[in-house]
Amino acid sequence: MQTSFQTIGIIGKPSDPSIAETLAVLCGYLKQQHYTVFIDSASAHFIEDQHVTACSINALARHCDLVIAVGGDGTFLAAARAIVDYDIPLIGINLGRLGFLVDISPNELPEKLTPSMIEIVTKIDGMFLNSQRSDGLIVSTPTGSTAYSLSAGGPILYPSLNALVLVPLNPHTLSNRPIVIHDSAEIEISFCQTKQINALVTCDHIEIPEVFISDKILIKKDPKPIRILHPEGHDFFHILRNKLNWSSGYHTVS
Amino acid sequence: MQTSFQTIGIIGKPSDPSIAETLAVLCGYLKQQHYTVFIDSASAHFIEDQHVTACSINALARHCDLVIAVGGDGTFLAAARAIVDYDIPLIGINLGRLGFLVDISPNELPEKLTPSMIEIVTKIDGMFLNSQRSDGLIVSTPTGSTAYSLSAGGPILYPSLNALVLVPLNPHTLSNRPIVIHDSAEIEISFCQTKQINALVTCDHIEIPEVFISDKILIKKDPKPIRILHPEGHDFFHILRNKLNWSSGYHTVS
Amino acid sequence: MQTSFQTIGIIGKPSDPSIAETLAVLCGYLKQQHYTVFIDSASAHFIEDQHVTACSINALARHCDLVIAVGGDGTFLAAARAIVDYDIPLIGINLGRLGFLVDISPNELPEKLTPSMIEIVTKIDGMFLNSQRSDGLIVSTPTGSTAYSLSAGGPILYPSLNALVLVPLNPHTLSNRPIVIHDSAEIEISFCQTKQINALVTCDHIEIPEVFISDKILIKKDPKPIRILHPEGHDFFHILRNKLNWSSGYHTVS
Amino acid sequence: MQTSFQTIGIIGKPSDPSIAETLAVLCGYLKQQHYTVFIDSASAHFIEDQHVTACSINALARHCDLVIAVGGDGTFLAAARAIVDYDIPLIGINLGRLGFLVDISPNELPEKLTPSMIEIVTKIDGMFLNSQRSDGLIVSTPTGSTAYSLSAGGPILYPSLNALVLVPLNPHTLSNRPIVIHDSAEIEISFCQTKQINALVTCDHIEIPEVFISDKILIKKDPKPIRILHPEGHDFFHILRNKLNWSSGYHTVS
Repeated sequence: MQTSFQTIGIIGKPSDPSIAETLAVLCGYLKQQHYTVFIDSASAHFIEDQHVTACSINALARHCDLVIAVGGDGTFLAAARAIVDYDIPLIGINLGRLGFLVDISPNELPEKLTPSMIEIVTKIDGMFLNSQRSDGLIVSTPTGSTAYSLSAGGPILYPSLNALVLVPLNPHTLSNRPIVIHDSAEIEISFCQTKQINALVTCDHIEIPEVFISDKILIKKDPKPIRILHPEGHDFFHILRNKLNWSSGYHTVS
Repeated sequence: MQTSFQTIGIIGKPSDPSIAETLAVLCGYLKQQHYTVFIDSASAHFIEDQHVTACSINALARHCDLVIAVGGDGTFLAAARAIVDYDIPLIGINLGRLGFLVDISPNELPEKLTPSMIEIVTKIDGMFLNSQRSDGLIVSTPTGSTAYSLSAGGPILYPSLNALVLVPLNPHTLSNRPIVIHDSAEIEISFCQTKQINALVTCDHIEIPEVFISDKILIKKDPKPIRILHPEGHDFFHILRNKLNWSSGYHTVS
Repeated sequence: MQTSFQTIGIIGKPSDPSIAETLAVLCGYLKQQHYTVFIDSASAHFIEDQHVTACSINALARHCDLVIAVGGDGTFLAAARAIVDYDIPLIGINLGRLGFLVDISPNELPEKLTPSMIEIVTKIDGMFLNSQRSDGLIVSTPTGSTAYSLSAGGPILYPSLNALVLVPLNPHTLSNRPIVIHDSAEIEISFCQTKQINALVTCDHIEIPEVFISDKILIKKDPKPIRILHPEGHDFFHILRNKLNWSSGYHTVS
Repeated sequence: MQTSFQTIGIIGKPSDPSIAETLAVLCGYLKQQHYTVFIDSASAHFIEDQHVTACSINALARHCDLVIAVGGDGTFLAAARAIVDYDIPLIGINLGRLGFLVDISPNELPEKLTPSMIEIVTKIDGMFLNSQRSDGLIVSTPTGSTAYSLSAGGPILYPSLNALVLVPLNPHTLSNRPIVIHDSAEIEISFCQTKQINALVTCDHIEIPEVFISDKILIKKDPKPIRILHPEGHDFFHILRNKLNWSSGYHTVS
C-alpha cells in the first residue's frame, strides 16, 4: 500500500455482524501503520476502538484519501457511488478473506446483482436432477419447442416425438443446458428459497394464480391426447425453413 | 375433409371483430356442404345466419365430432383445453388466411405465449440500432460482463477495455446477438408497447422506482471514474479460470 | 467523392470476367471526372480504354492517392494488404452493384473467409429438411449427446429416449438450431458443392475412408440393440451433475 | 451380477499396458466366482493366468453370454460393434476404477471421440489466459466479428471499437466463452499436443503454410491502419438489421 495515504475510510456491509472480526483486524492493522481511520456510522458499533472515528459515508468520502469497502459486491458498489465525486481510490475486501478484491467474482456477483434469480430444484420421476439458480425454467412439448423455448436456447423437437425439453433461463451455472426427456416422465419443480420472493408460473398463456414459494409444481402428460387435423401437404420442415429464415442469405454473391 | 364428420363446432377468438368475415365464409362453406354447425356463444353475434346454432363451449364440445378454432394460438389452445375430454379432432384456422392453421408457428407463438416479452427500441448515439422483442436487455460494463450478462450469453470483456456490451435476454429474433460498443456511446432505450405492462429497470442491484412504459432510459458513462486498487499479483485470467472451472476436466483418463 | 484525389488505382478480382462491365462503367465515370486512372495488370485486359494505365499492384499503390477494389471481400482484403504501407484510402465496390462496398457484410463474408465451410443438404425420411452452410453436422444418439454434440450447442438427451439430435457446427445461418427427431427416422445427408473440397465423415471414433463429395450418407438405426448393464445405483443425473460441475458455485458467500 | 451368466468375455483396450492390473483383478475375481473367462487375443499377454482362454473377438462374441470391455469409450464402442449380432449384454469398466461404466462420461468422451480436437494454450500480453480443448480458436477484429466468429457464438463488435474478440470453436469446457480484449494486446497461441496432428492456421482467407505443432503464433495489430472510405449515409446498424433479418417476424398477426 502506498505511503501517500494518510486518512483511510472504511465502509462496512450494513447490518451484518459477520464483518465484525474483519473490521477489527483491519482497523488494528491500519492504526498500527499510523493511518487516521474513519468508519461509517452504521458499522462503527462493530468496533470497540476509540481511535477509529465514526462519521457519515458522505463525510468519510470528503475527508479520506482512500476508502476500503468490507463486504460483498453490494457494499463495494454502494461505496463506489458514495465516493465518485471525490476522486479517491477504492479497495474491496471480501468478508473473511483479507486482501482480495470483490470487483470480479463471476460466481458471486449473480447472487447479489440479479434480484430476479431464483433457485429451482427439479426432480424427474422422483430422481433429483439439479438445483439451479436461473431466471426460470421452461418445460416444453415439441409444439412449444419452437416458441419461447427456442429463444432461450432450446432445441427444436419434431412434432410427433414423445418428448419434453427442460430449458433453463439464463442459468447461473454456464454448463446448465437443455435436457430432452421422455414425455411420460413426471417432473417435480420446487424452490430452494429463503427470501419470500414470488415465483410466476405460466401454463401456455395462462398465469397460475397464488403460487407460493413453498409449493411444489408437478407436471405430467394428460393421458387424453388432442388430435389435430392438418391439411394435405402439411410439411413441418417447410414451415421451419420459412419461419426461421433458413433460406435467406443463400443467394448472396461477393 | 373426411365426410364422416356430421356436426362441426366453431370456437372464435373472443371479442375480436376481425374474425367476423372469416366466420361468415367458413359457416357459409360448411352449410353448403350440409354440415350441422354450432358456434360458441361469444362469437355467435358475429354471424347473421339462423342455421348456425350458438351454444356454450362445453355444450359444443359434447355435441360436435370436429371443432374448428378461428383465431390465433391462444384461441387454439383454449379450444384444445375445452375438448380434451371428448376425443374429437381439432383444426385451427388463422385469421384472414382461409388455409388451415398449423399447430406450430415459430414467429407467431412468442407473441401470444410469452406474456413477459416486451419490445425494446435501442438507439446508440442517436442512431437506431434495433427494435427487439425479448425478455429484456442487459447493458454491462466489463466488470458486469462476468455476472448476469454471462449467463445470458454475453462475452467476457477484459476489465480495462473501454467498452460496453448490450445483451438481449431470450430474444424473439434468433439472430439477435450481443453487441460490444465503445463506452463513450450514449444509449437510449425506449419501449414500443401498446399494452400497459410494466418495465423493471435495475441499476447494479438497485431497482429504479416508477419507470413508465412511456419513459426513455438514457445510459452514459459518468465522466468521473472510480479508481480501484488491486493487491499485487492480481490476475484477472487466474480468477476467470478458477471461477468458471476452466481447468476442470483436464485430468480425466478414459 | 472529395476532389482532392487526383490519381485513382483500380484493383479487380483476379480472373473473373464478370467484373468487366463494372470496370468499364467505373473507368468511364472516373475519366469523365478527369481523374488519372491506373488499373492492376491482371484486370487491364478487361478494359479497352487506352486512357487507363496498367501497372503492377505495387506500382499502383505507390502512385495513387485512392484505391478502389472491385470484387468481393477477398479482393478488398488483398488490396488492403497491398496499400497498407502507403497510407492511402480504400473504397470497395461490390460486383454488379455500383454502390460502395461496405466493410462488413455478415452474410457474404462467411462465403469467402471460411474455407472449411461446406453446404450440407439433409433429408429426414425422404423429406427435405434444409440446406445449410456450416463447418459440419453432428448426428448423435442420446449417449453421444453429452460428448462433442454438447460442445457444439446440442441439448442433453436422456439415455433411454428413442431420439436422435442433429446439431449444426457453427452454421452460417444463425437461426439454424439443433433438431431432435425420433430414432426410427432415416437421415440422408448429401453435399451441395461445386468446389472439389473434401468431406470428412467420422462414425464414433472411426473415420470413414473415401467419402466423395458426390456421395450420399444414409444414417439409420441398427435393428439390433446393444444391451448395456449398469451397476446398481447407476444415476445418470448424478453423473451429469458431477461431470458438468453443476454443483459448483453454490456455496459462495458475498 | 446375475448368476445366469456362465461364460464371460473380456475385451481390453488394445496396446495399453496400463490395463494389465485391472485385467488381473477382474480375471481373478471372475475365476473366483467360477465363471468361464475368455479374453481377446490382443489383451491376453497382459494376463498370466492359464485358466483364462485367449481367442479372437469374434469367437469371444459367439461363445460368451456377457462381455466386459476394459478401457475407455473407444474400447467400449469397438466391443459393442463386435457383439451387436449376438444379443449379449455389455459392461464397461473404466481403467483403474473398477465397476463404473463408461457409456456416459461427458468430460471423457470428447477426448476419444473427436479426433479434430486440439489443445490450445493462449497468452495475452505474456499472461496465461487458458489451455482449452476445442476445434480451434478465432481471433477476430470488429470487421471480422460479423463473419465466421458470429457463427461460432461470438459477439458483434462495433467497427470503430479498438478491440479483438477470441472465440473458442466448440470448446470441450462448456464455460469457455468469447473474450473481448483491447486490440493493442499481443496474443500468443501455442499447442499442448503430444500427438503429431496438424494445426491449420488461416489468416483472412489465406492459409499459412507449414505450421508445425511446436510453433508459436503471435498476433498483434499492424501499427499502420487501413483507411476505408464509406459513402455518405453509411449506417452499420442498418446493414446489421438487413443482413441478420432483425426486422423479419415483426409483422405477423396471430
